[in-house]
Amino acid sequence: MQLIDGKLISAQIKQEIAQEVLAMKANGETAPHLVAILVGHDGGSETYVASKITDCQEVGFQSSLIRYEDDVTEEELLGTIDRLNRDASITGFIVQLPLPKHIDEQRIIEAIDPNKDVDGFHPINMGRTLIGLPSLVSATPAGILELLKRYKIETSGKHCVVIGRSNIVGKPVAGLMMQKNYPGDATVTVCHSRSKNIAEICRQADILIAAIGQPEFVKADMVKPGAVVIDVGTTRVPSTLTKSGWKLTGDVKFDEVAPKCSFITPVPGGVGPMTRVELLKNTLLAAKMRIN
Amino acid sequence: MQLIDGKLISAQIKQEIAQEVLAMKANGETAPHLVAILVGHDGGSETYVASKITDCQEVGFQSSLIRYEDDVTEEELLGTIDRLNRDASITGFIVQLPLPKHIDEQRIIEAIDPNKDVDGFHPINMGRTLIGLPSLVSATPAGILELLKRYKIETSGKHCVVIGRSNIVGKPVAGLMMQKNYPGDATVTVCHSRSKNIAEICRQADILIAAIGQPEFVKADMVKPGAVVIDVGTTRVPSTLTKSGWKLTGDVKFDEVAPKCSFITPVPGGVGPMTRVELLKNTLLAAKMRIN
Repeated sequence: MQLIDGKLISAQIKQEIAQEVLAMKANGETAPHLVAILVGHDGGSETYVASKITDCQEVGFQSSLIRYEDDVTEEELLGTIDRLNRDASITGFIVQLPLPKHIDEQRIIEAIDPNKDVDGFHPINMGRTLIGLPSLVSATPAGILELLKRYKIETSGKHCVVIGRSNIVGKPVAGLMMQKNYPGDATVTVCHSRSKNIAEICRQADILIAAIGQPEFVKADMVKPGAVVIDVGTTRVPSTLTKSGWKLTGDVKFDEVAPKCSFITPVPGGVGPMTRVELLKNTLLAAKMRIN
Repeated sequence: MQLIDGKLISAQIKQEIAQEVLAMKANGETAPHLVAILVGHDGGSETYVASKITDCQEVGFQSSLIRYEDDVTEEELLGTIDRLNRDASITGFIVQLPLPKHIDEQRIIEAIDPNKDVDGFHPINMGRTLIGLPSLVSATPAGILELLKRYKIETSGKHCVVIGRSNIVGKPVAGLMMQKNYPGDATVTVCHSRSKNIAEICRQADILIAAIGQPEFVKADMVKPGAVVIDVGTTRVPSTLTKSGWKLTGDVKFDEVAPKCSFITPVPGGVGPMTRVELLKNTLLAAKMRIN
């Protein structure tokens, strides 16, 4: 069994990005500029946005944070998005989700210029991903494919089973894994809460991607010997062993599943750091699209 | 075994559409107006476009045909698309594919206003379909779901296997069948030319959708007893039994597969007529979106 080290790979990619930024600057170009819009004071959102800003600093990107209180109107947000869309000095931007209930998230997402949509949530980016066209791919699916690539895991003709059909992970990763491409060219099955015989289907997987958000859902008897297991789950479960009182738990019962696998991602340190770094990669890609 | 009669269902839907058009006119609204753009003189394309125009007449739509010779430039086509996008009297339009090689099909598709994209090929419509948002769904996948609905075939928790990963059938129908919806909520597997053990995977299907474009690819030993089989294939194979010298052949070896099925679509007379009528439904939907 080999551990897929997302922390190591993401650090390598950060270095690669930092070098590209240095080259851009040496070439007289400005560094990519990522803007994050944060509404309200949700603890998780605060942490995510802060880490995104730190990541930008580490690779030499410019970054800005625009904050709104919980009572911001949809019109105000749309106005800001319109301004960012038209501002040539902004490479890409994200609106940290979730948003307060009085704001229509989908309307906000679709207002973002698809060329600046570095979260890859705009339907046109989802559609272009599914069709197999160049696109800004949302960070978690992109990170999963990057891990498969960096570990040279064969995917062509393999059976990839995805547990979970979310719009930000399950559906796009399924779309990517079936493209005529590497990583891809896999037979792809998507199962979810309504699926019958889910264990039986999982046992067929050469590559199992668990993105259902249920801690330790995947047990040893659901995994074929030699399978590649990618764990997207990151649920905080109470723990007496940590200072914070909780620990991050994946969708895979790691201790019993890991010995059966050829490759497996840990939680934390697997897909999580990749999601962070893929936002930087998308921003760099958006900068290149802007130039071409 | 029950035969799924696409010809009958499509005739019913045509009547429903014709009644809606009458009601619109009685209400002082103009009838939907579909425009087809046809480039060159390909026999298949001529036939398809002519039947689309006839269909429009039968349900009371306005229709127009814009013809170009094979040497039309991409810029000319884009100019026409821009004009149709801005013309409020046009409900929707299609550009009949394939286009001559010197024209970038994807650029043409993406130039169409998504609200007038009644073929549903624009990435934003593909993306919205995948996300589960209201969209113009391309005609063949929409027709397949309509058949499942009209025959009250249960889909929730069933295993739906799609053979073929094309952008106009395999991928969108897979996306639709996994939505939290009826028809949908199925476990979905997409297999294709690179898949291993394709027969074994097909044998698991409660609902088997064959869209691989290989005549009689699906044999009896690939089908589970009681399965629902949807045959999207329409290949012309030489025949001494017909006046034309060819006959339309599906992806399923009908004679040996049919006795094992609970439901099956014939070729011709199954999915084909549904594809035609779904273009009309999309045009009606585009007209309603225009009003709202």
